[in-house]
Amino acid sequence: MSNIDLVLEEVDEKLDLSVRKLLELISIPSISSEVSGKAGIDQAAAWLERELLEIGFSTTVVQTQGHPVVLARSTERPRSDSLRLLFYGHYDVQPVAPLDEWGHDPFAPKVIEEDGVHRFYGRGASDSKSQLWSFIQALRAWKSVNGSFPAEIVIMLEGEEETGSPNLPEFLERYRHELQCDVAFICDSDMWSPTQPAITTQLKGLVHEKVTIHAPNADLHSGHYGAVCANPIRILSSILAAIHDEQGRVTFDGFYDAVMDIPESQRTQWRSITDAADIADGVSFEGGLVEQGYSPIEAMWGRPTVDINGIGGGNQGPGERSVLPGSATARLTFRLVADQDPEMIRDRFRAFVRSRVPPGCRVEFEGSGGSAAVRLSESNPFLKAAARGLEAEWQSPTVLKGTGGAIPLVGQLSDGLGVDCVVIGFILSSDAIHAPNEHYDVERLQRGTRSWVRILQEVLNERAAVQ
Amino acid sequence: MSNIDLVLEEVDEKLDLSVRKLLELISIPSISSEVSGKAGIDQAAAWLERELLEIGFSTTVVQTQGHPVVLARSTERPRSDSLRLLFYGHYDVQPVAPLDEWGHDPFAPKVIEEDGVHRFYGRGASDSKSQLWSFIQALRAWKSVNGSFPAEIVIMLEGEEETGSPNLPEFLERYRHELQCDVAFICDSDMWSPTQPAITTQLKGLVHEKVTIHAPNADLHSGHYGAVCANPIRILSSILAAIHDEQGRVTFDGFYDAVMDIPESQRTQWRSITDAADIADGVSFEGGLVEQGYSPIEAMWGRPTVDINGIGGGNQGPGERSVLPGSATARLTFRLVADQDPEMIRDRFRAFVRSRVPPGCRVEFEGSGGSAAVRLSESNPFLKAAARGLEAEWQSPTVLKGTGGAIPLVGQLSDGLGVDCVVIGFILSSDAIHAPNEHYDVERLQRGTRSWVRILQEVLNERAAVQ
Repeated sequence: MSNIDLVLEEVDEKLDLSVRKLLELISIPSISSEVSGKAGIDQAAAWLERELLEIGFSTTVVQTQGHPVVLARSTERPRSDSLRLLFYGHYDVQPVAPLDEWGHDPFAPKVIEEDGVHRFYGRGASDSKSQLWSFIQALRAWKSVNGSFPAEIVIMLEGEEETGSPNLPEFLERYRHELQCDVAFICDSDMWSPTQPAITTQLKGLVHEKVTIHAPNADLHSGHYGAVCANPIRILSSILAAIHDEQGRVTFDGFYDAVMDIPESQRTQWRSITDAADIADGVSFEGGLVEQGYSPIEAMWGRPTVDINGIGGGNQGPGERSVLPGSATARLTFRLVADQDPEMIRDRFRAFVRSRVPPGCRVEFEGSGGSAAVRLSESNPFLKAAARGLEAEWQSPTVLKGTGGAIPLVGQLSDGLGVDCVVIGFILSSDAIHAPNEHYDVERLQRGTRSWVRILQEVLNERAAVQ
Repeated sequence: MSNIDLVLEEVDEKLDLSVRKLLELISIPSISSEVSGKAGIDQAAAWLERELLEIGFSTTVVQTQGHPVVLARSTERPRSDSLRLLFYGHYDVQPVAPLDEWGHDPFAPKVIEEDGVHRFYGRGASDSKSQLWSFIQALRAWKSVNGSFPAEIVIMLEGEEETGSPNLPEFLERYRHELQCDVAFICDSDMWSPTQPAITTQLKGLVHEKVTIHAPNADLHSGHYGAVCANPIRILSSILAAIHDEQGRVTFDGFYDAVMDIPESQRTQWRSITDAADIADGVSFEGGLVEQGYSPIEAMWGRPTVDINGIGGGNQGPGERSVLPGSATARLTFRLVADQDPEMIRDRFRAFVRSRVPPGCRVEFEGSGGSAAVRLSESNPFLKAAARGLEAEWQSPTVLKGTGGAIPLVGQLSDGLGVDCVVIGFILSSDAIHAPNEHYDVERLQRGTRSWVRILQEVLNERAAVQ
């Protein structure tokens, strides 16, 4: 039996224990965007630190202005020619609301069999606790069989990914030296399909904006004043309705200024790997406002978009209430493509809103996030090695894909620290991430962990071939 | 000292006790629109029954499909020629949200002095517990001085006014005989100003609608699917934005079909009693969308309107969440003028919404309320008597006014039972009804109670003059 087969066997043999521990981690409510999530964040960071120590890493929980980063390093003395690999994951999770739409307690996961799949439901089950756990378990198995890690290893586990990583730039600057590496594996992305692996080579930028329209008055009786006083919900609705034209194009000045149209070569490549049915995966596009002139996949991966994520104002029930509210709030995200400047887009949007606020009313903005889009080289040798590793495990070609999602870290690592990033993950769109009933399964945890073992082997092979 | 002076003196002497009891009533959280308000509703009904019994009424708490009606009758054997007077009030209150905007506990009122006024804050303080308490205390004082009530009295206290009186029609039909009277005093309306009394002779109709747009999918990750899938918030915003044109006119088909324009005589009368500053009372009209061609008061009293009372969907914080929500909901009210049919308006609105829902999406409606507008005769002798009573107390002419508000009962009593209604109240627009920090004051409770004593006297005088 070759060395790699022994490591894969170790992964399989310890699967039950791996699942048990993962469920422990998922049961910790590490919601980064809620004040009440702070205890869960700290508990999850401490739990991960303990596990990484046990495997043989030297660990630190690095405090930031927000939530901590768990940083782990292999302690073996590196050979002068040794590889240095960085693994990134995040242990924070999305909020769980609306709780009444969950069929399972989001923080009490257990394995249940559904249609032959051993599934577990929980917030963070897929995004992203199973992702980080997969590479940690692969490294554990490797060391257990070989007595040492395959290379110098740095693990970085973030606690603020779901809130736009506000303190990441400062952390990266502070730990600039420790984070230098030959390649960084960013483990927070999708497979192509349940049977086909993928590496994500294009990521969008991300800007969050919260907009509140204040009327000149506090809440009023709508029967008395509805006919004459400003209604912030009506004003906000008009603004939101004006963001897109009937062709699905964003109307505000400057939004497309820096945008290069999708190159024909890119269009051809995307057409070769997919059609709309592939990316839909059970999701209906009916009633969607796709930008005219673009296929769904081109719109998702290659065109900038504005989405309304939430709205609230006045009476939300349960009963009726004749109120003319004093304010109304919407939350939006801007998903950017290469060359769009996040702060410029934010400014232009704010100018657009301000120009539509009637006299006497007031608009309040609150912004967060602000990352630019990233395009990663597809010719990087470590990316090719990773693709081979994935193919070996899944017996299916690795798709090099784009995404509508954003991982602010990738731009900051590649642009700021000059580190090559390879973005890999085993999430499926059917996992209900960011939604009620998020789930993952034992089979994918196993094959994800095995994938990392094979990727490590291919990375070593690649290095050996070069030297 | 004349008889009426003795009754007024009795009101003044017992004011402290009257206030103490009223604060007890306000402290009961009788919120009709919330399931958790049921205990408060029952407690308030029982409290009122006890008080009315003590004053010498025969009382019943009439159960309905919803909340009970407290019904009280004078027990003295009526003379064959005796007057029969109905008094109406409601003991249910609006919800208190947003609670954090209250400077006072909404259900723990106490009297505090502010700028020489003895004010008390609480939900229902003005709308409408002080209103019903004023006539109850006037009747109490009258009986205490004279040994009997001034006429045959029926008191009807409703527990569902704030939810559109869904069970009122059935109640009125069932108690048709008991509710017959010479005149009904409906005590749930405004003064003209802090120093000038008013009787409301025009009331608008009211229709409530709740609209939910469902996308074909449940919540999705907005980064992945925002560019291609239906966004219910965007769809709902577009629909809400399309309800009014730039002239402030309602755009949907049929809305103005039955509407007679405001007669020139009416316009002249309204102009003679008011300008915008009078009705504004500290409320700013800036940024409001007043229907073009109409003054603020004409729009409020004489033109039908559509108001958005609430909206909700997707992430409402506190943190950011990249969600493309599965649904979004808005609540609207339609305020109707004479000859508009509530159910026809509801149907037309629904047709308008349906025509704007994209394929694959679904709209769900939930409607309540449904009362037509009412115009009461200004030549009714009891109305004239009431106006004289108010003038005697306030030393200022009584304004005969319209309102943007609706009291479904009025139409049902006048049209259904053929009873003449006189709509009187002592609410001020500065009382913050339906809003945080609702309040009332001891001085108005006193003068309101005294007003009722004087109205009773004038009603008796009127009857004596006729006979």
